Amino acid sequence: MNILLKNMDIITGDALGSCIKDGNVAIKDGIIYSVGKLSELADDFKPEKIIDGKNRLAMPGLVNAHTHSPMTVLRNFADDLSLEEWLFNKIIPAEGLLSPEDIYWGCMLGIIEMIKSGTTCFADMYLHMDEVAQAVMESGIRANISKGPLVSGVRGNPGISVDEEGCTGFFNRWHNNAGGRIKVYVEIHSVYLFDEGPLREAAALARQLGTGIHIHVLETLAERETSIKKYGLSPVGACLEFGIFDVPVIAAHCVHPDADDLDVLCRKKVNVVHNPTSNLKLGSGIAPIPDMVERGINVCLGTDGAASNNNLNMFEEMNLAALIHKGRSMNPMLINAGEALRMAAVNGASALGFHEETGCIKKGMKADLIILDTDKPHLCPMNNPLSAVVYSAQASDVCTVIVDGTVLMENGELKTIDREKAMYEVEKTAKRILHK
Amino acid sequence: MNILLKNMDIITGDALGSCIKDGNVAIKDGIIYSVGKLSELADDFKPEKIIDGKNRLAMPGLVNAHTHSPMTVLRNFADDLSLEEWLFNKIIPAEGLLSPEDIYWGCMLGIIEMIKSGTTCFADMYLHMDEVAQAVMESGIRANISKGPLVSGVRGNPGISVDEEGCTGFFNRWHNNAGGRIKVYVEIHSVYLFDEGPLREAAALARQLGTGIHIHVLETLAERETSIKKYGLSPVGACLEFGIFDVPVIAAHCVHPDADDLDVLCRKKVNVVHNPTSNLKLGSGIAPIPDMVERGINVCLGTDGAASNNNLNMFEEMNLAALIHKGRSMNPMLINAGEALRMAAVNGASALGFHEETGCIKKGMKADLIILDTDKPHLCPMNNPLSAVVYSAQASDVCTVIVDGTVLMENGELKTIDREKAMYEVEKTAKRILHK
Ligand SMILES: [Zn+2]
Ligand SMILES: [Zn+2]
Repeated sequence: MNILLKNMDIITGDALGSCIKDGNVAIKDGIIYSVGKLSELADDFKPEKIIDGKNRLAMPGLVNAHTHSPMTVLRNFADDLSLEEWLFNKIIPAEGLLSPEDIYWGCMLGIIEMIKSGTTCFADMYLHMDEVAQAVMESGIRANISKGPLVSGVRGNPGISVDEEGCTGFFNRWHNNAGGRIKVYVEIHSVYLFDEGPLREAAALARQLGTGIHIHVLETLAERETSIKKYGLSPVGACLEFGIFDVPVIAAHCVHPDADDLDVLCRKKVNVVHNPTSNLKLGSGIAPIPDMVERGINVCLGTDGAASNNNLNMFEEMNLAALIHKGRSMNPMLINAGEALRMAAVNGASALGFHEETGCIKKGMKADLIILDTDKPHLCPMNNPLSAVVYSAQASDVCTVIVDGTVLMENGELKTIDREKAMYEVEKTAKRILHK
Repeated sequence: MNILLKNMDIITGDALGSCIKDGNVAIKDGIIYSVGKLSELADDFKPEKIIDGKNRLAMPGLVNAHTHSPMTVLRNFADDLSLEEWLFNKIIPAEGLLSPEDIYWGCMLGIIEMIKSGTTCFADMYLHMDEVAQAVMESGIRANISKGPLVSGVRGNPGISVDEEGCTGFFNRWHNNAGGRIKVYVEIHSVYLFDEGPLREAAALARQLGTGIHIHVLETLAERETSIKKYGLSPVGACLEFGIFDVPVIAAHCVHPDADDLDVLCRKKVNVVHNPTSNLKLGSGIAPIPDMVERGINVCLGTDGAASNNNLNMFEEMNLAALIHKGRSMNPMLINAGEALRMAAVNGASALGFHEETGCIKKGMKADLIILDTDKPHLCPMNNPLSAVVYSAQASDVCTVIVDGTVLMENGELKTIDREKAMYEVEKTAKRILHK
């Protein structure tokens, strides 16, 4: 369908942080056909749908570069606990009770939450990833999904071999499926949950498939210490050694790198996912993001799973990313609004392998964008749209979401998913596994 | 009007962090008449209005214990700058252009934003406080407002005497006015903007009026250093020495206390307002809140003005307060959800001099409470209501707000204020003073 966003303020989300006043976006066959003045629009563009720009602001859809979407089921279930108590006594036992159907609905609820809060693309790793892929396909959202050898109950069995056949089959089923909205990476959870063998196997498999790896790196200080004891290498050093960094990598967390690790992350063009809420909430620490940005490392943002957040709200992550480094370093000029938005959109798209397709509002890109309702007291006066989006806005200001040229939500109403059904199913699951 | 909240989940906000499943709240003549089972409700209670509890959660109204509400005009106008550039080249020159009418509308917009985001009581200090008092009276919200010698253009004139007559007149006009919804304290901005003389005068005036003081304390490291150079005392030591702490005090920030300062704050029962967003955004640092809580200091939460936040959203402050100390200290058990909620409500009420009247949902208290719409994907499954409110909820989940037994907002619709008029006026002001 041809769509025209008419007379709308536009944050393009490109490297320059351009804001266009009273601009227009033409969408044709899922692609951004033109951005700018109406008079420049070719005569042959006939919009079938016009979205009026009054009290509306368009911006790129946000990219949640690290999550475990089905963990919505475990939201608000285990908080304010020590990491060990949280992970080993609460989360892992509960996860063991999740069926493929539970995963499907948990993921679907996560996708609903993401669409409602302006996320148009996400990177996921969890159990039963075929169910996740199914939900992504049906919902119309874009995703990088990865499958690893982790199956229910396998956590804490570090020697297990990578299930090469399972991963390859999954790759063949889903990579570039759903009209290109799905990309498949190989998951290997982390250096602390797996031994050298499976880490090397995962790297080899990704190389062989011509794809990338999604992994947790340096989430905690304990992870650093354990790796040094085991390998004489930091987790970053171990990933380098085992070939993980020889393919495109989504590296979640990177909270505790030293200078050598930063050199490696930069040299190997590792994509770092900053998860500020999760790192704060679990007491992991605060990643040295300004150092990474200064070195030119591609930093993007993620929510992590709802069990450690407890939502999938990228507006909150963008806001936090712009705030905590200023406070921590006592320097109000670190990570400005434009940088925070780049992390939340274009950098994420690049990390997830969609850099040629999405992340900013530019002619020729896939039409993944969101529209905010700016008729809100907390957005008045707007003064600076970039500041407004990063410092004042709430996720609930998102009214319309377009992915791949398809309207997934319009004025708050979901177009492709049954919200009530998903909420009903997830509540049922939570009752069954958490409140027995 | 008699109001009954029927079959609703209730977070009472008391010290125990009680959650009542399927409870009822009866409101009679502005007072909470009963909380609990319907069968326990006296026969003589006849509700004129019933609010059904399906998909609704009641909790105490939040208390924004430090703000400058009219600064909404300056929202998103000067961000990501050094403190000096921000304050002296942007904020102060703009403030100098604000008329009393600008202040009135700026405050009204701030009140709208606060009501919409679940705040029922706030502590304000700014210029032209009669206009602020007027807006508080008309809107129906509760507030502690303070007036100091600061008039337009006076900042940076530290030797000025306290305008005793002006302050006393203001106190007599407004203290306990609006049916007791307004309390008046004396404002003295800070130890860095005023000399010993006016600081002592402000303390004497508050003592004489039988009221308290609202002051900024130890916002930055520079403030600490300057005070030590000038007085041989930290700002906390100077406040103690000059008599400021001999009356009830709302002390905003307290980011950089040493052990002696903490002793003083504890011994003198100083109410500390933690402003996490503002302290992060301006690069001031992170206050040692867990230390304060452990010592039994009454810590509450504030947004500070919209120029350094850039909104007046107490859900964000509550969330941040529960997150940043965990991350900074790498201890996920610090400041749990219950503690964060106490800071955001009952502790704030106490700091603002309303401790006998508001802050929790309890028989005999004034009926200041908010109702959340829980039919939201990010609140599903609810699992633990306290965690949900602190970690998952958004301000936009607030649907209904009651202050002093009067419904100020119902299902998102404001009942006492013309939102469009306020937004129009503030936009006009911003155009006039910021975009000349
Ligand atoms: Zn993770
Ligand atoms: Zn202040």
